[in-house]
Amino acid sequence: MSNFGFCDLRLVNAYDLAFREAKSAVNASAVLQQANCFASLPEAVHDCSWISGASGLEARDVTTPVQRLERGAIDLLSASKGGRVALVFGSEKHGLSRDDISHCHQLVHIPTRVGHDSMNLGQAVAVCLYELIREPDHAPTPGKRVQRGAPAATIDLLHSRWFSLLKRSGYAKRKVADSTELKLRQLLRRMNLSTRDATLVLGMVRQVELAMSDERIRAKSAMEWSVPGAD
Amino acid sequence: MSNFGFCDLRLVNAYDLAFREAKSAVNASAVLQQANCFASLPEAVHDCSWISGASGLEARDVTTPVQRLERGAIDLLSASKGGRVALVFGSEKHGLSRDDISHCHQLVHIPTRVGHDSMNLGQAVAVCLYELIREPDHAPTPGKRVQRGAPAATIDLLHSRWFSLLKRSGYAKRKVADSTELKLRQLLRRMNLSTRDATLVLGMVRQVELAMSDERIRAKSAMEWSVPGAD
Repeated sequence: MSNFGFCDLRLVNAYDLAFREAKSAVNASAVLQQANCFASLPEAVHDCSWISGASGLEARDVTTPVQRLERGAIDLLSASKGGRVALVFGSEKHGLSRDDISHCHQLVHIPTRVGHDSMNLGQAVAVCLYELIREPDHAPTPGKRVQRGAPAATIDLLHSRWFSLLKRSGYAKRKVADSTELKLRQLLRRMNLSTRDATLVLGMVRQVELAMSDERIRAKSAMEWSVPGAD
Repeated sequence: MSNFGFCDLRLVNAYDLAFREAKSAVNASAVLQQANCFASLPEAVHDCSWISGASGLEARDVTTPVQRLERGAIDLLSASKGGRVALVFGSEKHGLSRDDISHCHQLVHIPTRVGHDSMNLGQAVAVCLYELIREPDHAPTPGKRVQRGAPAATIDLLHSRWFSLLKRSGYAKRKVADSTELKLRQLLRRMNLSTRDATLVLGMVRQVELAMSDERIRAKSAMEWSVPGAD
């Protein structure tokens, strides 16, 4: 990270002892000293409006779009013009979980040999960051309009309210609730809402939810719209 | 190396014990198992007709041409159409020595941040090899004529005879002999001779050297050409 000029390292569920030792070592880099720890991925990326996940080919069956690194880097740089962005790596052993991936707008894949896809974590990070700084003109042209994406925290709030609504509505069944929750999260990433739009949708969802639980609201709107059979 | 499909690892002056242990480890990769050790860099690259060295910015004062990695990768791939090529890395601590560099046709430089140029060796290797396989069309177009470069062993032989000639001729002074030897080596790399041309020049150098040491040859040719004052 330091080699390529990246400075905001965020660790999720880090092994505390090792982290504190590394951080306080005499030769610890500024990146490490300023690194922050979070208990979960959503907390770590709460202020990011675009999240790319680095992943091997084993993630090919998810619905999150996958791009080769050199293409995905362009998307990440482009998104960075509209807000903070994150590039997420999984653990060396297991990579990103399906749950981690559901927080990503896109997966990027380093074009490794089919027979040996799994990479050393530090090397994978170096390759991805190199690709990001490789060509200054990878960045989008200034004239291009870039939509300012909503921060992940906003999208997560929307997701939470929306999912709650789906549960209430009977759409989300308890047996497959986890799977439905993931699907919704991915759907929201694909929508790539601006802050304004996310707030708008959130307002709608909240209101529907309120109406769902409050008979008076339902009755009032039935009257207002003269909806036959509304109860 | 294995991630990106490269298989011919050659080690110079490796720490023997560590190397044998790594090689015989249960999970040793095929690359490591097939790796070969050499006592010197010239021996390791004897069959290569193009040698690129990976180097930080500290090597900027050498006469060997320096290219940013993405440009140097194109040259390396282009040269690989005409013979074996090598990408040489120095030790993690000291990088390539001036002597190592004098064996290189080109230095490639990973565009790291000015304040933190020195990279972890494994990460530098990963980034360079990624760049080489990054785009299949980095390779030169089939129509482009590619000169078949002479193997390093041929160039080294030429260098050795030529330098011997320079010593004999009084051009190379003992005090600065090392420096002259390096300069000559770099000159030969810049010439980038084909095998045919290298053999041709070698023949010339050899003959001049013979003449230098044998009065009869000098006398004969003086007669033949009627060179006034030839002795």
